Amino acid sequence: MATGVACRIPDGDDGINASLYTRYLRALSAALAPAGLGLRLVSAAWGGDEVDTYVDLYHRSEVAAVVLMDPQCQDDRLRQLRAAGVPTVLYGRPWAESVVSWVDVDGAAGVGEAVAWCAERGHRRIGFLGWDEVQGVSRDRERGWRSAIESLDLPSQGLSELGVPDSVSTGSRLAAMLFDRPEPPTAFVCATDLLALGALDAVHRRGLRPGTDIAVVGFDDTPTASVADLSSVSQPLIEVANATADLVLAGLAGGVPEDAGRLFQATLVRRAT
Amino acid sequence: MATGVACRIPDGDDGINASLYTRYLRALSAALAPAGLGLRLVSAAWGGDEVDTYVDLYHRSEVAAVVLMDPQCQDDRLRQLRAAGVPTVLYGRPWAESVVSWVDVDGAAGVGEAVAWCAERGHRRIGFLGWDEVQGVSRDRERGWRSAIESLDLPSQGLSELGVPDSVSTGSRLAAMLFDRPEPPTAFVCATDLLALGALDAVHRRGLRPGTDIAVVGFDDTPTASVADLSSVSQPLIEVANATADLVLAGLAGGVPEDAGRLFQATLVRRAT
Repeated sequence: MATGVACRIPDGDDGINASLYTRYLRALSAALAPAGLGLRLVSAAWGGDEVDTYVDLYHRSEVAAVVLMDPQCQDDRLRQLRAAGVPTVLYGRPWAESVVSWVDVDGAAGVGEAVAWCAERGHRRIGFLGWDEVQGVSRDRERGWRSAIESLDLPSQGLSELGVPDSVSTGSRLAAMLFDRPEPPTAFVCATDLLALGALDAVHRRGLRPGTDIAVVGFDDTPTASVADLSSVSQPLIEVANATADLVLAGLAGGVPEDAGRLFQATLVRRAT
Repeated sequence: MATGVACRIPDGDDGINASLYTRYLRALSAALAPAGLGLRLVSAAWGGDEVDTYVDLYHRSEVAAVVLMDPQCQDDRLRQLRAAGVPTVLYGRPWAESVVSWVDVDGAAGVGEAVAWCAERGHRRIGFLGWDEVQGVSRDRERGWRSAIESLDLPSQGLSELGVPDSVSTGSRLAAMLFDRPEPPTAFVCATDLLALGALDAVHRRGLRPGTDIAVVGFDDTPTASVADLSSVSQPLIEVANATADLVLAGLAGGVPEDAGRLFQATLVRRAT
């Protein structure tokens, strides 16, 4: 009987988001332990190599299931794992394929809450900074911004910019672009804390005071956001980890439909900005 | 044949240091993969529960060895794992027991480099902020401060403060205490980035300009330090992870003395502060 659950730390710059992986892995590890299951960290290149590694561990009875933390819009791993019969749970919604167990956080609603808070503080031109992708996490958060803007009857034209990569410098660049518009925003709601920290930098460069002249809200409530006193939308990582473990165990017991999905609410953490 | 190597994410506040664990675990996972070994994350309370979990996994042939990331001054885990015959490698020096394989970074020398850099910039009263412990990482870094101060013939009396926990608020409090001395320091060398970020906060509260009026240097080069433009001493985490994997493999092959230790140099990252 396999006692491992395979997962792979998502690619990234090991930057400020990396602390979230530690938090999630620690909680997922704790949630699986009572069932006698332990996390097995897999090192492989994203995609085919990764799937081969999972399937190999599964056939050698070292892991009973796989947790994917980074579903993408073009993601053949789900189909391949399904074809190989490997039980799989996603952290993140299946942006393309739908027949899979997943747990995710409602980013759109979280961003909507951030927009509403900016409006409460008197902002009328509330911009959005995200990263460029066909569909996925940033597009979901952008939809949340647009939907909140429309329901508040606020302007959206010329107030949104997307760039790559998801980084502080991209955030700074995109915020500067919006500042140079004829009617610049007075608030930035951002798809990540990285972009928001960049926006903060742009605000400081213009001699403006964040929280007073300009509102800035990030997403992910990283420890860096806390240190920078940056308002941010927080994901309930412990609940997500517990739900991930529940779906893994239910899948092993054959007790859930394979398209079980659970969407958690995000929480706006109001700080100085 | 066991293909797992057990490790446990150290306890902590999931704060800015957590990103370092992600970085180290990712690198260790990659370094073990070519040998067909994978990391098994263990969830257990520090100490006896943890050792029981390792020994159980070892006896069930699920793991071949253990990596301990958080050796403490009072640490009975080493003796217990040795008694159970479980191959073990430490990230961190064995502060009490010596007969064990370990990999660590020379924190004292790294802090010494930070002190020397402050002196080069004209500072004569260079303080130290650390956390309170009998012996271990912070005491090692404090020794590095004291040794550098003495070799540069600078004053040390009344320029060092220790507190708990290791946090931003502790750093702020300790820096304020030193500022209130009759002859306050003009530079703060800190045992962690957390303490240094707190010192930065105290500097701002006094209306002083970090990097101009006051030097502040942290330790660990967290992503938050980079965002805050905080100078910091960086650990070579990839090299440490590779060396950890080498010692694990050598131990499994029976090829190294059990007291093999490897000490890596830290690097000072000079930023605005």
